[in-house]
Amino acid sequence: MATGVPFHDPRMRGFRSRTSVEAALGLIDRRVDRLGPERVGLRDASGRVLAAGVVAGASVPAFDRAAMDGYAVRGEETFGADPYTPIAFELIGRVRPGGDRGPFVGPGQAAEIATGAPIPPGADTVVRVEATESDGRTVRVSEPTAPGRHVGRAGEDIVGGTAVLAAGRVLRPQDVGLLSAIGSGTVEVVRRPGVTILVTGDELLAAGTRPAGSRIADANSPMLAALVARDGGLPSVVGPLPDDRDRIRSSILGAAGSADCLLISGGSSTGPEDHAPGIVAELGELPVHGLAIRPASPAGLGFVGGVPVVLLPGNPVSCLCAYDFIAGPIVRRLGGRPPSWPYRPTELPLAYKLASVVGRVDYARVAVSQGRVEPIAISGASILSSTTRADGFVVVPADLEGYPAGAVVTVWLYD
Amino acid sequence: MATGVPFHDPRMRGFRSRTSVEAALGLIDRRVDRLGPERVGLRDASGRVLAAGVVAGASVPAFDRAAMDGYAVRGEETFGADPYTPIAFELIGRVRPGGDRGPFVGPGQAAEIATGAPIPPGADTVVRVEATESDGRTVRVSEPTAPGRHVGRAGEDIVGGTAVLAAGRVLRPQDVGLLSAIGSGTVEVVRRPGVTILVTGDELLAAGTRPAGSRIADANSPMLAALVARDGGLPSVVGPLPDDRDRIRSSILGAAGSADCLLISGGSSTGPEDHAPGIVAELGELPVHGLAIRPASPAGLGFVGGVPVVLLPGNPVSCLCAYDFIAGPIVRRLGGRPPSWPYRPTELPLAYKLASVVGRVDYARVAVSQGRVEPIAISGASILSSTTRADGFVVVPADLEGYPAGAVVTVWLYD
Repeated sequence: MATGVPFHDPRMRGFRSRTSVEAALGLIDRRVDRLGPERVGLRDASGRVLAAGVVAGASVPAFDRAAMDGYAVRGEETFGADPYTPIAFELIGRVRPGGDRGPFVGPGQAAEIATGAPIPPGADTVVRVEATESDGRTVRVSEPTAPGRHVGRAGEDIVGGTAVLAAGRVLRPQDVGLLSAIGSGTVEVVRRPGVTILVTGDELLAAGTRPAGSRIADANSPMLAALVARDGGLPSVVGPLPDDRDRIRSSILGAAGSADCLLISGGSSTGPEDHAPGIVAELGELPVHGLAIRPASPAGLGFVGGVPVVLLPGNPVSCLCAYDFIAGPIVRRLGGRPPSWPYRPTELPLAYKLASVVGRVDYARVAVSQGRVEPIAISGASILSSTTRADGFVVVPADLEGYPAGAVVTVWLYD
Repeated sequence: MATGVPFHDPRMRGFRSRTSVEAALGLIDRRVDRLGPERVGLRDASGRVLAAGVVAGASVPAFDRAAMDGYAVRGEETFGADPYTPIAFELIGRVRPGGDRGPFVGPGQAAEIATGAPIPPGADTVVRVEATESDGRTVRVSEPTAPGRHVGRAGEDIVGGTAVLAAGRVLRPQDVGLLSAIGSGTVEVVRRPGVTILVTGDELLAAGTRPAGSRIADANSPMLAALVARDGGLPSVVGPLPDDRDRIRSSILGAAGSADCLLISGGSSTGPEDHAPGIVAELGELPVHGLAIRPASPAGLGFVGGVPVVLLPGNPVSCLCAYDFIAGPIVRRLGGRPPSWPYRPTELPLAYKLASVVGRVDYARVAVSQGRVEPIAISGASILSSTTRADGFVVVPADLEGYPAGAVVTVWLYD
């Protein structure tokens, strides 16, 4: 069979130039803003990003309270007490946590008190129970206890009206406890970005399907969905779609109207079946197409209706690499998080040479063994197992040919 | 008012002895096992712990495929080609990704091929499109291309039947992609531990409620729920309950029959209103009550019907400390995770002295400023804001009085 129209047109092949990673990140910096706020309950607040600073609506504690179990008295009346010459007080009542403030404690009087209970009027200190003896009517104090001792002062934890948590903070478990303590049952956090993951490719079966014939299972959408969720986004997957221009176009339009970000996996290069770049350029703009990074050069970054659109290569390692360099920072910025990598860096020496090519940043998967960094030899863009066997990756800058054995490099650890 | 029955009985006060952290962790090690498996879909798999090793059910790729767009030919027929003396091939068809294997490529013939498409029978290499010219009937090849070049071999990523992911692994996003690629639409992971958080205290209002009178909002349940979720558990909160022995007892019985772990906040000490320790001892066993750690000494660890029960002090800092030392390791072990802290350690010098007491481990909150560690002065067990202002904590071993200024200490970072 002869094909009348060339399937490949060599004149149209390849990228005329590739955008540097720095330039792409600069564009993201200028064009991607964090989303607006939403209000969530405390049970959904941990790990979310505060949209506005929090000012305490109440002091914690709101009242002077006992920090020990014991007896509330007037502290100066205990001076001189010791185990041989205890001082006796008339026991006039009991104060319990959560109860009322209890009886007025006059001179020579004491009230039983439990940790957390309000200090009764008249009293100014708590003698700890271990330094007392009581018969139920009289309590004998054997330890001098200065006024204010074992008393948690109103506002000693938090003073009402003061700023307690700053905007942009990623809420910790204890922050949520603190919000609860000041009576904030809800909190304003940055909305989670809705991220549509559009998967394209005639060869793709639905994720997790047993490969059959020349069709392969879509590995990218479950990986991307997990990456988006890790970075605070709400992923939704569309596809796999066949390489059909009209269907891809309408899916892009749909996502641009409903999502905060669109990731398109597959068809990101310059071939005749690579529809997404042309569609994005037609519907909006595609300032980045071709990225100076290996193995994710057939990646792109555009905007449709103001919504960032990232073109990710279909090869799974390239897809992960392009996510890490371009898509991840967008998702994190939209969600108010630091755009920097969520991977932990560590500095270790190379066990052997790490080769790279000048002119492109290299995303080199490595293993760490006995404190040394071993580049993973199989580095093809399609070898997903290289990223599951790797402990992390090393980024080789564009102007280097790599690193010699023994050079100390920064490994970004996947776990 | 005189009280007939002593509210405090000094003979019953305090802990006779305190269990060391090491002994408590040893008990956890011996008595707490990881839970059984459950099967989840790929979309829920990232971050979960593999219950069993995964063996690839299929090779990836399952067939030889093109790694570039170009023309499938017999490689040795291209030898000698260069831009001045290209070698012509008869164009006999086209192979697309996901399509059939295409026509048999005989001597002197070529088939157009796109990345990811199966190599047609007869061909053994792919000449990249940039090194060709085609008029739709004939393709002229200007680059010698050895057999096997630009061909992704069947099984080059994963060989079917081989082990790809080991039991106990916390699944990464790319692991989920790999599971998808081998056709595993579901995966067996360790069940998430169901953790009941039982909150007790007469003084407590529901979490997030504005404090009123001598009642305070429960800060511990939202904090504990967030900690449990962070550690892979499924929290459910019961309470706040008043300090009512019968109600607490029936709640403990209920949780022991339904949950994998029970955390009880409040009433964990030795006072008359501290019901939980006695109930746990009565219903099961309480081998640990009183812990040699500050500020979480009124903590305990027991078992009811084989279910671990942790008694956590009501003071929020003590509660966090007891979670970090005792409850967190249990939740993580149940879920098949490493019991070690999820906090990142960093070694830094102390800006000034960090005082501690001999005989107890100290959980000292610290700030990190300009590369130096500053102990947070207010260290009361009730000062929750000390843990929100802190960047992390330093653990001072029981046999030390603290550290002098300048000493390099390990800070466990909260974020």
